[in-house]
Amino acid sequence: MDTQMTPATDFLQDFAEMSRHGATPGGGVDRQAATPEDHATRAWFGDWLARHGLAEAVDGIGNQFGCVTLRPGAPYVLVGSHLDSQPLAGRYDGAYGVLAAAHAVAAVAAEAGNGDLEPRYNLAVVNWFNEEGSRFTPSMMGSSVFTGKLDLERALATTDAQGTSVAAALASGTAPESETRPAGAETAPGLAEVARYAEIHVEQGRVLEETGTQIGLVDRTWAAAKYRVTVRGAQSHTGSTRMHERRDALYGAALVIAGVRELTEEFDPGLLHTSVSELYVLPNSPVTIAREATMNVDLRSPDESVLARAMDRLEALVRTAGERSATDAKLEPTHRWGLLSYQPEGVELARRSAEGLGLSHRRVMTVAGHDSTNMKDVVPTVMLFVPSVDGISHNEAEYTRDEDALRGVELLTDVVRRLCRGE
Amino acid sequence: MDTQMTPATDFLQDFAEMSRHGATPGGGVDRQAATPEDHATRAWFGDWLARHGLAEAVDGIGNQFGCVTLRPGAPYVLVGSHLDSQPLAGRYDGAYGVLAAAHAVAAVAAEAGNGDLEPRYNLAVVNWFNEEGSRFTPSMMGSSVFTGKLDLERALATTDAQGTSVAAALASGTAPESETRPAGAETAPGLAEVARYAEIHVEQGRVLEETGTQIGLVDRTWAAAKYRVTVRGAQSHTGSTRMHERRDALYGAALVIAGVRELTEEFDPGLLHTSVSELYVLPNSPVTIAREATMNVDLRSPDESVLARAMDRLEALVRTAGERSATDAKLEPTHRWGLLSYQPEGVELARRSAEGLGLSHRRVMTVAGHDSTNMKDVVPTVMLFVPSVDGISHNEAEYTRDEDALRGVELLTDVVRRLCRGE
Repeated sequence: MDTQMTPATDFLQDFAEMSRHGATPGGGVDRQAATPEDHATRAWFGDWLARHGLAEAVDGIGNQFGCVTLRPGAPYVLVGSHLDSQPLAGRYDGAYGVLAAAHAVAAVAAEAGNGDLEPRYNLAVVNWFNEEGSRFTPSMMGSSVFTGKLDLERALATTDAQGTSVAAALASGTAPESETRPAGAETAPGLAEVARYAEIHVEQGRVLEETGTQIGLVDRTWAAAKYRVTVRGAQSHTGSTRMHERRDALYGAALVIAGVRELTEEFDPGLLHTSVSELYVLPNSPVTIAREATMNVDLRSPDESVLARAMDRLEALVRTAGERSATDAKLEPTHRWGLLSYQPEGVELARRSAEGLGLSHRRVMTVAGHDSTNMKDVVPTVMLFVPSVDGISHNEAEYTRDEDALRGVELLTDVVRRLCRGE
Repeated sequence: MDTQMTPATDFLQDFAEMSRHGATPGGGVDRQAATPEDHATRAWFGDWLARHGLAEAVDGIGNQFGCVTLRPGAPYVLVGSHLDSQPLAGRYDGAYGVLAAAHAVAAVAAEAGNGDLEPRYNLAVVNWFNEEGSRFTPSMMGSSVFTGKLDLERALATTDAQGTSVAAALASGTAPESETRPAGAETAPGLAEVARYAEIHVEQGRVLEETGTQIGLVDRTWAAAKYRVTVRGAQSHTGSTRMHERRDALYGAALVIAGVRELTEEFDPGLLHTSVSELYVLPNSPVTIAREATMNVDLRSPDESVLARAMDRLEALVRTAGERSATDAKLEPTHRWGLLSYQPEGVELARRSAEGLGLSHRRVMTVAGHDSTNMKDVVPTVMLFVPSVDGISHNEAEYTRDEDALRGVELLTDVVRRLCRGE
């Protein structure tokens, strides 16, 4: 192994091989949390860890670690992202960050092994379980449990639309994995053993591309408020029920969906992102008016006061939709994060690293949530972006150029090196 | 057996026994076409036919007949409705009409057997397959195939949301049925062998109740136009995608759903009923904007010119929804029936019968489609309604009082008697 860093061709070859798991005809991947496709990717990654001398360990919520002890008893510099994906998604989101972390950790561990680096911390790579939240809500499940924001038992009991629990879905992948590689006798690190966290991700936006910048130094997260809205009406005949006697849950839902979108028109462009993207209708029959409709609502803003106003407006809008459709429309908050900053020391460390490598860089905010959104609240964290073409995300057409991907690995490796030294 | 009519207690007892198949905790039934619950009800009905001396026969699309030969070689007076139901539906819709038909046919056959009646036609009761259309589209499938409006092969190949075909779902019920009663060696009657058709149904509306009338003589069907609307957008990240770059299929769908409902406000009350009640969203994930949404649209009117205007407005509305949401919104007609009249001779025959029995009656239109909607286009048809409390339909709370149900059986029996005599 090269003592400076894993060669570029190795990374690209590994990335291509990994992307075959759950590959879709449209050039993307589909490996929702704890599906056979996700399990296959996890098994492949377990093999990779073993081949590169990292000790695998899996914790109770399925977070998959690869640990290297450089200084017995010292805490870890943890580096990672997530291998799970949305349905019909791109192959970079999350997975790029896990593989970049693995290459960075292996490279820095080799440097320490050769005596080229005096380690203050041990190193570990992590594949966080269920960052996407498409099969099991909420998103960022693995890092939420790890950071104590979500109860382990509650997370394990969460079910998907078919009624399968997280616990059962995780267990379904255990047997095949343990056949192909040694059982994870290793104990997974806990939060108390982590001193620093670093993550790299494709931008999922266009700021780097539009400004011709190679690296984004993430300094803040957009604030977000997520909800579940349940509209309850009454089942009746679509043909014969008089219009003024209808209590149509799907009509109530449509008023909410359209209203949530049109909320953004009350603010300056770019100040509020809103969406409804998941909807369940009962009984969902062509001849029976819906008795119930359940949906998510997602509000995000780079300005806390805008988000607060939007949250108030949402309450009024849901009430009005219920009144107009003669249904009971109920709004329940499910997830909330504020406009929290990443530690300035981490941004500064990453800036020095980028400068040292001659990479152009700028500070950026992240609109999407990441596992680092959780980690930064409890551990000094560095979050990095590389450009993504046209900012396409959660779509098979998501793409990051090889040179951008490789620059990211190079930078992350240097950041891990600096963190490992105790910088 | 009583030679005048099957006693009321027998009918109510049979109805209670039949309603146990697919019974729901809320007092209704749930037996969508060719589900185990529908198969169980069909098997029970097959036993009933055998116990009452009617020869069972099932045709290629699963229409279930019980035949009595009174005059060899003569065509049939066919009487029936459907045993399948919507999800979480009432126990009267359809099932009441099949059992009433069976009791009427058995009673009139007994009269002919006793020499109290000179039959011109043979008699048959029918349970039409999949009238509801909730599991397999379109509705009125069995009578559509029987009347040549729908191709048999195409109907058999239709799949439900899980990909199960009508052919496979029908076959899944064959074995248990044939174990409990003799194999249906009988050949099912075809359209050419049917001279008259009669059907009775609960009103699914409030006209009879509000006017204190015991019997509705159905003279016309509201005109209807049904569609499928497909909205195609682009999958992207709910958080990070800029609002003006979104192509959100669920937002497009919401504009259609709200617009379809609000169409009714452009016409006088009661002139237009509209609904969207079935919606499928892809990928239906909380963090990914929908790439596709598919829904039904249902327009009905007692006035053809109103329906024509509404159809034009729907086209414009779907186009506008596509433009506003930057999606491709496509409108496809799937089912259409005009404001067709039932034969005046049949209405008059039913009126005479009601007069003779001393039952109050009035002419009514049907808003809902029925198998008689198909049959009346090809065979002289009589369609009757009995009152339903509060007009509640496609809901477990659907209810018709025993005295109203029994008056309907008495009237239908007399109508069948008159039709059988060649009146």
